[in-house]
Amino acid sequence: MLVVSLAPAADGAKYASALGVVTSMSQARPLNVGLIGLGTVGSQIAERMLTWGPQLSRRAGVELCLQKVLVRDVTKRRTIDISPDLLTADPDAILDDPRVEVVMEVAGGDEPMRSYIERAIQAGKHVITANKVVMAKHGPELLDQAAEKNVDVYFEAAVGGGIPLISTFRTDLQANRIESVSAVINGTTNYVLGRMAAAGLSMADAVREAQDAGYAEADPTEDVGGYDATYKLAILASIAYEIKVRPDEIYREGIQGIEPVDFRYARELGYAIKLVAHTQRHTGRVEARVHPAMISLDHPLARVEGAENAVFVEGDLVGKVLLMGQGAGGRPTASAVVGDLIDLARSIRRGVQSRPSFSFDDRIGVVPIGEVKTRAYYRIRVDDRPGVLAAIGQVFAEEGVSISSFIQKDAWSHDMTAELVVTTHPSLDASLQKARERMERLEPVHAVSSFLRVF
Amino acid sequence: MLVVSLAPAADGAKYASALGVVTSMSQARPLNVGLIGLGTVGSQIAERMLTWGPQLSRRAGVELCLQKVLVRDVTKRRTIDISPDLLTADPDAILDDPRVEVVMEVAGGDEPMRSYIERAIQAGKHVITANKVVMAKHGPELLDQAAEKNVDVYFEAAVGGGIPLISTFRTDLQANRIESVSAVINGTTNYVLGRMAAAGLSMADAVREAQDAGYAEADPTEDVGGYDATYKLAILASIAYEIKVRPDEIYREGIQGIEPVDFRYARELGYAIKLVAHTQRHTGRVEARVHPAMISLDHPLARVEGAENAVFVEGDLVGKVLLMGQGAGGRPTASAVVGDLIDLARSIRRGVQSRPSFSFDDRIGVVPIGEVKTRAYYRIRVDDRPGVLAAIGQVFAEEGVSISSFIQKDAWSHDMTAELVVTTHPSLDASLQKARERMERLEPVHAVSSFLRVF
Repeated sequence: MLVVSLAPAADGAKYASALGVVTSMSQARPLNVGLIGLGTVGSQIAERMLTWGPQLSRRAGVELCLQKVLVRDVTKRRTIDISPDLLTADPDAILDDPRVEVVMEVAGGDEPMRSYIERAIQAGKHVITANKVVMAKHGPELLDQAAEKNVDVYFEAAVGGGIPLISTFRTDLQANRIESVSAVINGTTNYVLGRMAAAGLSMADAVREAQDAGYAEADPTEDVGGYDATYKLAILASIAYEIKVRPDEIYREGIQGIEPVDFRYARELGYAIKLVAHTQRHTGRVEARVHPAMISLDHPLARVEGAENAVFVEGDLVGKVLLMGQGAGGRPTASAVVGDLIDLARSIRRGVQSRPSFSFDDRIGVVPIGEVKTRAYYRIRVDDRPGVLAAIGQVFAEEGVSISSFIQKDAWSHDMTAELVVTTHPSLDASLQKARERMERLEPVHAVSSFLRVF
Repeated sequence: MLVVSLAPAADGAKYASALGVVTSMSQARPLNVGLIGLGTVGSQIAERMLTWGPQLSRRAGVELCLQKVLVRDVTKRRTIDISPDLLTADPDAILDDPRVEVVMEVAGGDEPMRSYIERAIQAGKHVITANKVVMAKHGPELLDQAAEKNVDVYFEAAVGGGIPLISTFRTDLQANRIESVSAVINGTTNYVLGRMAAAGLSMADAVREAQDAGYAEADPTEDVGGYDATYKLAILASIAYEIKVRPDEIYREGIQGIEPVDFRYARELGYAIKLVAHTQRHTGRVEARVHPAMISLDHPLARVEGAENAVFVEGDLVGKVLLMGQGAGGRPTASAVVGDLIDLARSIRRGVQSRPSFSFDDRIGVVPIGEVKTRAYYRIRVDDRPGVLAAIGQVFAEEGVSISSFIQKDAWSHDMTAELVVTTHPSLDASLQKARERMERLEPVHAVSSFLRVF
């Protein structure tokens, strides 16, 4: 086994002497790190550690050693220059090696990664993970286990790539009661919606383009269906409110139903269409939902472009803070993982076993979507004949939904239908849904072709 | 002397038991804190500590005690409900009290605050400060002293109010080489420029309005002259590059010369006008400058509105990250100070004497403004007669400055003058200045009425 030493070279001494507290760095034993995964993210992490060793070690206050890297196929050609001796296909070579003090997991997916992380914690190793699925589904349990074992779990990279989010909640905003978090947190859907808006593409074409550009997976369901954003919101809401929010408690709707014409109406009404992840504090409960929404063009989230992510946090002291950047990709995610490693290394070498653990209040639940108040946009295809407006107006009135704007475009003479666009004032989501169902049953209504919440 | 105890009350036990590592909180002795300043910021800090004690103490993992508050006049009526026993007009009551472990300074200004901070450090106390002047002018020395004394100096609140900036550089972006930092970091000038752009106000009127709205001081020089932004940039650049950047090494220009007509041309050319603080890495040197600039409307900094602040950081791994929020004011600044206090309290109670200190490389200097490459905008008042264009074109050509756009508006018949607007391609700032001086000496040129760099 080859240990790639990251000891400061020529300029190390100068740096060390300028550092004060870490002048004894060279005397301390190195911190041995195991890496799980050598794909897009893992390669960037390994490369930074192998080529930037002295700088990282200086900043960490301890020599960082990349001890082993778990890969599926040790014979595969790699894009980075890494010694084959560092690679292993055997998870035990990392998880059972007592010299490994820190496990960095960037392979992704639920199992076997959850088990690996659990094994690492149980073996007294610190964990750094970029795994949103594991942290969203099992985060609170893993954090509890880590607290018991006096080790730490870092997961800055699990949400928003290199944008400093977890650390912002965990440290900077600690004097605040968090009121709400609103985010555009899935780059794939944002790219797709952006292309639909800018070029009038159909969703299928926009998804294909995103796949060609490397922004969407071959099977885009995880992104397009809103699952990815839901995992990330579960993590953010849990950290923001110190409660356990499970992904399956979050109301989730994907972007599948949106058509190019909706972007034209959105623009006309002064909105952009984004997949929004939103959570808000209520008394004794929180609201948490992921769905496409119309957002006013004045809102910073309306301006998030391409594969970017943005998170808008409101705290009772700090007011509104916006954090924006590349939410995915090898290099931004590696930035977060290696940043966590440096932070962790500093703690370990100062003799800190683990940071204060999170506390999660079990008594706070999630508000059912029907009880959430929101505004809505309906696009309705109707017969172009007298009495239709009255019938639709009647439905809204009976459901207690007040109309904010109303557009009827020229009728389409070929089939004698017209398109109505209605936006409402804030109403109970249940009433908005009820109105939608009732309209669909009205005889002159062909379809409610589109229903979007207005954010 | 009355110690206001912030021990967790009724719900403290529940919280503590959920916390794991800090269950022994109630056994630990409280952390005694002295506060210097009880103005806009200090009042918010005191109020949060006095009314939110259990939550803060739970998050800090230790009971936080506000021991003494230094004020100028103990008899003055306060906007918050605070016991007069807590107040003192004698700095020694905090600085010489061995029970005070942490000094929070939010009074501002250079002396006597620098001395107070130094005395606190020398007495082995940790310091949290919101003081940009002291940190910009004396930060590196104070941080060195703190490292020697094994105490810590926190200063998140010194730049950008509650926006997490210092912590982002100090922790989250540590895996990066920082390439550049560009910021709109002075709320007053941003408010003034915004009002000039939106309402066509003169600068004098916009400043008066900002004063009425509480965004500008009675003497607005510190803001309008760019000094405030320069202090903040000195701090950001020092932290970003780990070098010592003094405020007086930074090129500084205020917003005084800008006229309403410049906003009209800016809009026409697709720009906003902002006071920009910018620093960029060069080989062995850094660029650092504060001046008003035209910014493309596509750039996120162009959209920073009112008294907001925004900082755009580029790291070699993370790419571009934008951090935005309220950059000043009592509540956002208190959020940063109390956030620092919680972070510090956690460290202290885990037995950590001080965090890894900053290292500042003395060998990296600041590039003189003349050697900086930038684009420029000139507004030139000329006689409306043949040959003027040729003469101006000749000056630019001889200085090696290439013209990017050229606008000549209808001549003003009453005095037979015309206004020319020229923007250039990137050129050495020295050449741009030379061209300006030479044009001013041309006989048909009345004045170069405006010169702005294009960002």
